Amino acid sequence: MLQEFINTRQYSEQICQVLDLEDYLLQPEEHVSPAKWHLAHTTWFFEVFILEKYAKDYQLYHPKYPFLFNSYYELKGERIQRNHRGNLSRPSVSEIYKYRKHVTESIVDLLKNNDSPEVEKRIEIGIHHEKQHQELIHSDLKFSFNENPLFPVFDSNFNEDDQEDFIGEWINFEEGIYDIGFAGDGFCYDNELGRHKVFLQDFKILNKLVTNIEFLEFMQDGAYKNPLLWHAEAWDWINEKGINSPKYWHQIDGEWHEFKLNGLQKLDKEGILSHISFYEAAAFAQWKNLRLPTEFEWEVAQEKFNWGKRWEWTESAYLPYPNYQKASGALGEYNGKFMVNQKVLRGCAVTTSPNHSRPSYRNFFHPHLRWQFCGVRLAK
Amino acid sequence: MLQEFINTRQYSEQICQVLDLEDYLLQPEEHVSPAKWHLAHTTWFFEVFILEKYAKDYQLYHPKYPFLFNSYYELKGERIQRNHRGNLSRPSVSEIYKYRKHVTESIVDLLKNNDSPEVEKRIEIGIHHEKQHQELIHSDLKFSFNENPLFPVFDSNFNEDDQEDFIGEWINFEEGIYDIGFAGDGFCYDNELGRHKVFLQDFKILNKLVTNIEFLEFMQDGAYKNPLLWHAEAWDWINEKGINSPKYWHQIDGEWHEFKLNGLQKLDKEGILSHISFYEAAAFAQWKNLRLPTEFEWEVAQEKFNWGKRWEWTESAYLPYPNYQKASGALGEYNGKFMVNQKVLRGCAVTTSPNHSRPSYRNFFHPHLRWQFCGVRLAK
Amino acid sequence: MLQEFINTRQYSEQICQVLDLEDYLLQPEEHVSPAKWHLAHTTWFFEVFILEKYAKDYQLYHPKYPFLFNSYYELKGERIQRNHRGNLSRPSVSEIYKYRKHVTESIVDLLKNNDSPEVEKRIEIGIHHEKQHQELIHSDLKFSFNENPLFPVFDSNFNEDDQEDFIGEWINFEEGIYDIGFAGDGFCYDNELGRHKVFLQDFKILNKLVTNIEFLEFMQDGAYKNPLLWHAEAWDWINEKGINSPKYWHQIDGEWHEFKLNGLQKLDKEGILSHISFYEAAAFAQWKNLRLPTEFEWEVAQEKFNWGKRWEWTESAYLPYPNYQKASGALGEYNGKFMVNQKVLRGCAVTTSPNHSRPSYRNFFHPHLRWQFCGVRLAK
Amino acid sequence: MLQEFINTRQYSEQICQVLDLEDYLLQPEEHVSPAKWHLAHTTWFFEVFILEKYAKDYQLYHPKYPFLFNSYYELKGERIQRNHRGNLSRPSVSEIYKYRKHVTESIVDLLKNNDSPEVEKRIEIGIHHEKQHQELIHSDLKFSFNENPLFPVFDSNFNEDDQEDFIGEWINFEEGIYDIGFAGDGFCYDNELGRHKVFLQDFKILNKLVTNIEFLEFMQDGAYKNPLLWHAEAWDWINEKGINSPKYWHQIDGEWHEFKLNGLQKLDKEGILSHISFYEAAAFAQWKNLRLPTEFEWEVAQEKFNWGKRWEWTESAYLPYPNYQKASGALGEYNGKFMVNQKVLRGCAVTTSPNHSRPSYRNFFHPHLRWQFCGVRLAK
Repeated sequence: MLQEFINTRQYSEQICQVLDLEDYLLQPEEHVSPAKWHLAHTTWFFEVFILEKYAKDYQLYHPKYPFLFNSYYELKGERIQRNHRGNLSRPSVSEIYKYRKHVTESIVDLLKNNDSPEVEKRIEIGIHHEKQHQELIHSDLKFSFNENPLFPVFDSNFNEDDQEDFIGEWINFEEGIYDIGFAGDGFCYDNELGRHKVFLQDFKILNKLVTNIEFLEFMQDGAYKNPLLWHAEAWDWINEKGINSPKYWHQIDGEWHEFKLNGLQKLDKEGILSHISFYEAAAFAQWKNLRLPTEFEWEVAQEKFNWGKRWEWTESAYLPYPNYQKASGALGEYNGKFMVNQKVLRGCAVTTSPNHSRPSYRNFFHPHLRWQFCGVRLAK
Repeated sequence: MLQEFINTRQYSEQICQVLDLEDYLLQPEEHVSPAKWHLAHTTWFFEVFILEKYAKDYQLYHPKYPFLFNSYYELKGERIQRNHRGNLSRPSVSEIYKYRKHVTESIVDLLKNNDSPEVEKRIEIGIHHEKQHQELIHSDLKFSFNENPLFPVFDSNFNEDDQEDFIGEWINFEEGIYDIGFAGDGFCYDNELGRHKVFLQDFKILNKLVTNIEFLEFMQDGAYKNPLLWHAEAWDWINEKGINSPKYWHQIDGEWHEFKLNGLQKLDKEGILSHISFYEAAAFAQWKNLRLPTEFEWEVAQEKFNWGKRWEWTESAYLPYPNYQKASGALGEYNGKFMVNQKVLRGCAVTTSPNHSRPSYRNFFHPHLRWQFCGVRLAK
Repeated sequence: MLQEFINTRQYSEQICQVLDLEDYLLQPEEHVSPAKWHLAHTTWFFEVFILEKYAKDYQLYHPKYPFLFNSYYELKGERIQRNHRGNLSRPSVSEIYKYRKHVTESIVDLLKNNDSPEVEKRIEIGIHHEKQHQELIHSDLKFSFNENPLFPVFDSNFNEDDQEDFIGEWINFEEGIYDIGFAGDGFCYDNELGRHKVFLQDFKILNKLVTNIEFLEFMQDGAYKNPLLWHAEAWDWINEKGINSPKYWHQIDGEWHEFKLNGLQKLDKEGILSHISFYEAAAFAQWKNLRLPTEFEWEVAQEKFNWGKRWEWTESAYLPYPNYQKASGALGEYNGKFMVNQKVLRGCAVTTSPNHSRPSYRNFFHPHLRWQFCGVRLAK
Repeated sequence: MLQEFINTRQYSEQICQVLDLEDYLLQPEEHVSPAKWHLAHTTWFFEVFILEKYAKDYQLYHPKYPFLFNSYYELKGERIQRNHRGNLSRPSVSEIYKYRKHVTESIVDLLKNNDSPEVEKRIEIGIHHEKQHQELIHSDLKFSFNENPLFPVFDSNFNEDDQEDFIGEWINFEEGIYDIGFAGDGFCYDNELGRHKVFLQDFKILNKLVTNIEFLEFMQDGAYKNPLLWHAEAWDWINEKGINSPKYWHQIDGEWHEFKLNGLQKLDKEGILSHISFYEAAAFAQWKNLRLPTEFEWEVAQEKFNWGKRWEWTESAYLPYPNYQKASGALGEYNGKFMVNQKVLRGCAVTTSPNHSRPSYRNFFHPHLRWQFCGVRLAK
C-alpha cells in the first residue's frame, strides 16, 4: 500500500511533466478543472479525510486551502464556486507542488506507524480518488487544448486508438438469474456493493467497439437531421448546440480530422469511436436497429470480450443497488448523491490509471457529456 | 367505443364549464398550457391521426391549425413554440368549440361506418390521449390560478384529499421472480408491453400515502437546510429556486395554507401530501431512513393497498422494457423518445379521468416537476 | 377639464370595442402589457394619486388592486412582476370595466366640488398619463397580434401611412443661440421645463420622413451585413436576434408584406417607414452619409415641416435639462428615473391620442426598441 | 517619436515584471482580458495597421495570431470570442515576449527609414493605443486578484490614493458660449476633434473629489435601499447583483477593507473614492442634492482644479461632436461605433500612463461598469 500510494502520487506529477506552466491554469468551461486544481484537490483529500483526523497534532498546511480545493463535500465546509477554479493564479504551481510534497510525506509518516484499518481504508480510497483525477487531467487538458485554435499537442507519443484487429461477432447469453456486484477481497466503491441477483432475458452483445467509419456512415445518412432517431431532449440538445459530429472531430478543407492527445490528426477510420454523448450512442444504436446493453448485461458478458479502451455507455440509469448503504460522514457524499439523471458507463478508458477499474466498476455521467473517452458497444 | 368517445369529448368541455372566458388563455410558464390549447390539441390529434388518413375526402378544418395545435410530433410538421401557446387570443374559445364539434361529429360518422380495426385502435389511443389532457387541464389551471394573488377558486366542491382513515402498516413481499408489464385484452400504451420477468429481493411497502403532517415534521427538522438528505442536483435546485415547502403551500401570517382546486385553505394536516418533486420525495424517504419503491415493487404490491389519489414517485428511471417496440410513424413519438432523465410514477391522481389508469400504467416526469398531483409511498 | 377627463376615459374603452374578450389578456413579452392591464392601471393611477388623497372618506375599491396595477412607482408599494401581468385572468374584463366606472364617477364627483389647484393639476397629469397608455394599447396589440400566425386584424379601417405627397426638401438653419423647452401656459411634463439657451451650429433638416422604399434600398445594398454602418452594440443586437428588416415586415413567397393595424398587407413602398430601432435609424443615416437631428435641432426646426405620423428618433440621449427639478413624491418617479441609456424621440405617432403631444414633448425609449411607431427624419 | 515608441513598449513589459507566470492568463469575466493578451494585442495592432501595410516585404509573424489577438476590428477579420481569451495557454508568455521583440524591432527599422507622415501618425495612434492597454492591465489584474480569496498583492509600493489635503471649495462659472474640443498641434483622438461652441448656464464645480468617508455616510444613510435616489435601471442593477458598496470594498469582521494594488487594506476614510459605477455616482449626487458636471462644464472648469487621480464620471452621454468624422478604414472602428449607451468620463486615473490624457480627452464606459479607477466630482 505504501508503494501504491507513492506511485500514485508520483504518477499525477509525471502526467504533468509535458505541460507549460500556463497550461496548468486552464478552465474553459465549468465542468473542466485546471490541472493545478486537480493536483491540489487530490492532496486536500488526503489532508482533510486522513491527516486532520488521524495524524497526531497535524496542522492544516494553509488555512484557506480547504476553501480553495474542496470540490463538492458539503460536510467539509464552504468552497469556491466550481467555475472560479481557473481564476486562481495563486497559489502558484510551484507552491502546489510544495503542498503535495508536504502532504505526501505526512501520509508516508502516518502509514509507517499506522495499525488502524480505518486509516488504511481511507488511504486506499484516497489513492483511487487520485486515480480518477489522473484520468480527468487527461480529459480536461484535451478539452482545453481543443479550445485553442493552435491545437497544442499534449504528448506526441500518446496512442488513443489501438483496437485488436478482429471481426465483430455476436456473443450469446441465455436468460436466467445472474449475480451482480462486487465480489472478492480488494477495493471497490460503495456503489458496487450489495451483490445481488438480477433476472436477464436472452441477449447478444458484440465483442468489438464501434469504429469511426461506422459513425461516419450514420452521419452521412443524415442521422443528425432525423428526429426519429433521437430522444426528445437529445433532439433539443443537438439543435440548440448545433452538434453534428463527435466532440473532437473537425472538418478542415472538406476533410474530417480528429483532435487527440497527440495533436490534430486526419480521422483514422478504423479507430475506435470516442467522445460521444449517451444521446449520440443511443441514436446510433437506434439507427442500427440495435440497442445499448444494460449495465447488468455488460457485467455478465465482459469476460467474453476485451475491454479497456473506452468507457462504454449503457442503457442503465445510475441507481442504487438493492441494500445500497452510503458510507457515513462526508465520504457518503462520494457516490450516492449523484444517483439521479445520470447513466452508467462500464469498462475503462485508454486514459484510466492502472489498477483502477474492474468488472463491477460503475462510472456515471450525465447523458449529454462527452469530454470523457466514451464509446459504444452494441447489444440486441 | 362510440359512447366512450362521446363521453370523453363531453367531459373535457364539462371540466371547463366553471371557467371565465379569460381563464382559457393562461400560460404562466412554458410547461403549462392554456385550457383552450388542450381543447384544440386533443381535437387536432383526432383530426390528423384519424380523419386525415381514414375519413374519405376529409378536408382540414383550417390550414393553420396543425401549426397551432401540434404539440411535439416531428413527423406531423412544424409547430408553434411551446411557450407561445398562451399568446394566441385567436382562434377564440368559441371558435375552438366549433372546431371540436366538427371533429367530434366527423369521428362519429367515421365510427358508424367503420370496420377497420386500425381506426378503432387509433380512436382508442385518441380517447386516452384526451383523458391525459383532461388531467393536465386541472393541473395547469391549478398552477395558473396559484400565480394570481387573488387565488381564484376552480371549483369550490372539488375534494383533493380523502384518505381512508386507517393505520399505516407494512406489507411484506418475498424475494423471487415476478412478472411485470401489461397482461390482458384491453387498452394499454406501448411502454407497458413486453411482459417479462424481474427478480426482486425481499421488500416491505406501506399501505398508506405520506400525509402533510409528516412532511411538516421533515420541514421543521430543517430538512431543506441539510445537504446530506438530498441528491446533489436536488440540493442545487432547492437553493437556486429558494424552495422550502411543497409547491402550493403558502405561509400567511405565520400559518401554513395550501392552494387547492377549491381555493386557498388552511393546511389540512391529515391530508395526503401532494405536489412534491421526486427530489423532495427522495429526501423525505432518506430522512425517514427508508426509500421509495421501485416501479416493479409497486406493480407487484399494488393489489394489497388502495391507490388512486396521487401519482406515486418511484425510484425507477423511465427506461424501455426488454423487447420494447416503438409504434411506427408519428405515434411512435408518443412515449419512447422520453425514455431518458425521467422518473416513473405509478398509480393515478384524484384528477385522473375515469377508466384511464391501471396497475401496469407508467407515468413519467422529470424529477424536479411538481405541478402534478404527486405523492409518496414508502418502502424498505 | 371635466369634459376632457370624461372624453379620455371613454376613448380608452372605445379603442377596445373591436377586441374579442380573449384579446384583452395578451402579454407575449415582458415589455408588452395586456389591454385589460392598461385599462386598470390608468384607473389605479387616478385612484391612488387623487382619490385616496383628496376624496373625502374614499375607500380603495379592492385591497389587492394596488398590488396588481401599480406599474413602477416604488413609493406606492410592492407590485406584481411586470412579466406576470398576462397571467391574471381575474379580475375579469367586465370586473375591470366596473372598476373603471367606479373611479371615473368618483373623480367626476370630486371635480364638481373641487377648488384645489393641486387636484386639478393631478387630474391633468392623469389624463395625459391615460393618453400615453391609449397609444400603448395600440402598440401592444399590434405586437401581440403579430405573434399570432393567423395575423388578426385590429381594425380594418385603420390607416397608418398617409404622407402628404410632396418632394423632400432640405430646410436650412443658421448657427446661433436658440431657446429650448416648454413655454406657455398649458400642460407639459417636468422633463420639458427649464427653458434654456442652446448653441447650435448650422444645420439642414429634411421636410419629409423616410419611406419604405428608401429603407428597402438600404436592405438590398446589404446594409444588415455591413458592420461599418452600425454601432458596436447594434451589430451584436442584429446578429444575436437575427434581425434583417423592420419589425413588422414579413417576406412571404418572396414578397415583402407588412403587418399593420388593418392586417397583413403587401408592403406599400411609398408608405412611411415605421417600427425601426434607433440602431437601424442611425445605420440608415450613416449609409446615406447623413445623420439624425439632435432633439434641439428638431425643436427649432419643427415649425417648418409637418410632423405627427411617427415618433422621430433623434441622436440626443435622454438627459435632464439644466435646472431640471423632479416632481416631489411618487410623481417624481414619472420621468426622471429613466434619464440614462435612452434616446429622445420627438413628434408623435399616428396612434398618439389627440391633444397629447406638442413641439417640446420629449418621448424616450431604449435604442433597441421598435414596437412603437418610430420613424426617421434626416439631417446634416 | 522613436524614443516614445521604445519607452512605451518597454513600460508595458515593466508593468508585468511583478507577475508570476500564471498571473498572465487570468480572465475571470468577459470584459477583463489576460495580461498576456494585452501584451500580444498591442503588438498585433502595430503589425496589422503599420507593418503589414508599410514595411516592405513584411511577413506576418504567425498566420493565426491575427485571429487570436484582434479585439473588435471587423475590417481586420474574424477573431476569437472575447470570453475565450483566457483559455489560451499557448502561445506561451515567453513566446509572446518574442513576438513583441520582433514587432518592436520591425517598427524601429521602419521608423528609421520612414518619411511618410501616415506611418508616423499611425505609430502615434499605436503608442496611445498601447498606453490605454497599460491602464487596462492594471485594472484587469486588480479585478482578477480580487476574485482570489488569497488577495494577491500586485505591488506593495503602489499608492492609489494621494489627495492633496485642502478644503473642498466651489468654483463659479458664468453663463455664456465656450469653445469645446481639442485645439493645438499634438495628438488627439478623432472623438475630440471638431472644436465647436457650446452655450453653458451658470454653474459651480468642486475643486476636490469625493472621499471614502463621504460615500460611507451615503451608505450608512441607507442609500442602497432608497429607490428614490436611483435611476430605474440602476435600482434593478443593484438589486439583481446585490450591490451595497463600491466594488473593492470588503466587510471583514465588521470592519470595512478595500482591496488595492498594494493588497487588502483597512479602508482609508480620507482616501479618494474609486471603483464606482455611473449609477452610484449619480445616486450619490442626488443624495447630496447636487449633480454631476457635464463633460463641457468639466472641460471649461478643469484649469481651476487638480485632476488626475480618478476618471471622473460626467452626466454627458458619449455622443459625436457636431461635424464628427470617423477615420476611414478599420481605424474608424476605434471610437465612433461606441457612441451609444455610454457615459463620458474626463480626467485620468492614477493608473493612466504618462503623457496620455489631456483636457479634451473623452473616455467612455457603460454606466454599470466599475472596474476602472472611476471617481466623482460634484457640480450644481
